Amino acid sequence: MRNVTSENITDTFLSYLGPNTNPRLKEVLTNLSSHLHNFVRETKITHDEWQQALELLKWAGDITDEERNEFVLLSDVLGVSSLVDMINSHPEATSSSVLGPFHVSNAPDMPLGADFKRHYPGQVVLVEGYVKDTRGNPIPGAKIDIWQTAPNGKYSSQDEEQDIYSFHGLFTADENGYYAFTTVRPVSYTVPSDGPVGKLLDATGRHPWRPSHLHYIVKAPGYRSLVTEVFPDDDPYLDQDTVFGVREDLVISYQEQPAGTFPKDGFELSGKVDDSYSRLNFDAILLNTDE
Amino acid sequence: MRNVTSENITDTFLSYLGPNTNPRLKEVLTNLSSHLHNFVRETKITHDEWQQALELLKWAGDITDEERNEFVLLSDVLGVSSLVDMINSHPEATSSSVLGPFHVSNAPDMPLGADFKRHYPGQVVLVEGYVKDTRGNPIPGAKIDIWQTAPNGKYSSQDEEQDIYSFHGLFTADENGYYAFTTVRPVSYTVPSDGPVGKLLDATGRHPWRPSHLHYIVKAPGYRSLVTEVFPDDDPYLDQDTVFGVREDLVISYQEQPAGTFPKDGFELSGKVDDSYSRLNFDAILLNTDE
Repeated sequence: MRNVTSENITDTFLSYLGPNTNPRLKEVLTNLSSHLHNFVRETKITHDEWQQALELLKWAGDITDEERNEFVLLSDVLGVSSLVDMINSHPEATSSSVLGPFHVSNAPDMPLGADFKRHYPGQVVLVEGYVKDTRGNPIPGAKIDIWQTAPNGKYSSQDEEQDIYSFHGLFTADENGYYAFTTVRPVSYTVPSDGPVGKLLDATGRHPWRPSHLHYIVKAPGYRSLVTEVFPDDDPYLDQDTVFGVREDLVISYQEQPAGTFPKDGFELSGKVDDSYSRLNFDAILLNTDE
Repeated sequence: MRNVTSENITDTFLSYLGPNTNPRLKEVLTNLSSHLHNFVRETKITHDEWQQALELLKWAGDITDEERNEFVLLSDVLGVSSLVDMINSHPEATSSSVLGPFHVSNAPDMPLGADFKRHYPGQVVLVEGYVKDTRGNPIPGAKIDIWQTAPNGKYSSQDEEQDIYSFHGLFTADENGYYAFTTVRPVSYTVPSDGPVGKLLDATGRHPWRPSHLHYIVKAPGYRSLVTEVFPDDDPYLDQDTVFGVREDLVISYQEQPAGTFPKDGFELSGKVDDSYSRLNFDAILLNTDE
């Protein structure tokens, strides 16, 4: 439009959208353009500031590859990923939480009771629970994809000392919806801070720490997939997770167990754990796709 | 925060900003987070939709390099670049218009009257004008950086047949603020449509065309730099520029001149143009830095 102005540019943008535009895409772009243009008008963004923003996005693009996605991280530290999680959660189901950038596809199938920790030192943690629907019925055969940091605070994709599937595994719930495995406690860690997100955190006096967690993706036919995280209740970063991932129902106590009480059967480590260990119980409650 | 919810996440985000955050950065992030979170809440963005948005940004990063910047183009087709231009313009100065992705730094110095067109065919266009302040005083020594498409619709950075400075040149205004050169008419062209921006245009039934233009950056000490574009008044895309760059004061008529009237002096082509040619007069009015 020849007379496009700062007042009519949003309407001009909308007038460009063709009649065959998907209605949902049109709805999203209508709202997006309105917020984006209002943001620029209200804050009176200068050329230099907008150029800095575009350079930040270019830098994010330069640093992103198949194993690291700075756009996901930017969405995380701005609270957008968590907000998408929250508005798509259902009060009767387990809260979802950020996927993050460290999931590795095609993790190996592991039998129930398998051990994650391999040669790593640390107290054994026995993790078990049930996959259920919102009415409490078990979901047999649910797939439970779990990943976590090694004791050095690194995910396998960040760590040359680990093979890519280290601390990643895919379990299948039994006929009661039950799953179980052993591991060591995950540890608090920092999100990558050598890129534009790190620069943003630094400029705003924010730390890059996340509370420790086990990361879950739970799937079953007929149910909505659940991406979530399970946090120990004694982590110092629970109240200041830099990516806003903590929800009350995802904070779980690790229960200390006396020496000599590790289960005699059903675990890869049965017969090998004489010391004290801890137990973590976490049930995943899935929404039916029509809920 | 352990009890972060979809209602309090914007306040939680703001509570993370440290006391030493630059006040302007805090102002921008406060407004940005509010609009971004409201956008997600109001449109009820799903996980799949947000993932698609993040993949679009990753794709933009993959396709961006030193000669092509898909983030700039995305900003352009969303109208944001033009909005930043408009809110930073002054009614008494020449309107600014999008920089676009095709400017090449360090264009060669050219004497006044130099020829841009080289061996390219097409009617000669004599471009001239003055660089002035808002009170009409000339700005001697102003630097005028000009670039345009070749007749094939390509900028030098897109075209293996052109060297990098083809149709790029840097002129210095004389003591009267005057500048002049000869060229051929720029042509309408399409923005790159093989990336995410092209996909967005396609999905919304938008064409990728821009009206033809000469692109200017005008600089002088003590004045605000002006980035602008000069459009011929007969271009078919004036009213539907896909990047919203057209302003009324930037639309100029190419004045047809009879054969045999080309200036006898002062131009590289003087004595070489016998046919009809056209003239384009464009004055650039700069704002003083304190205006």
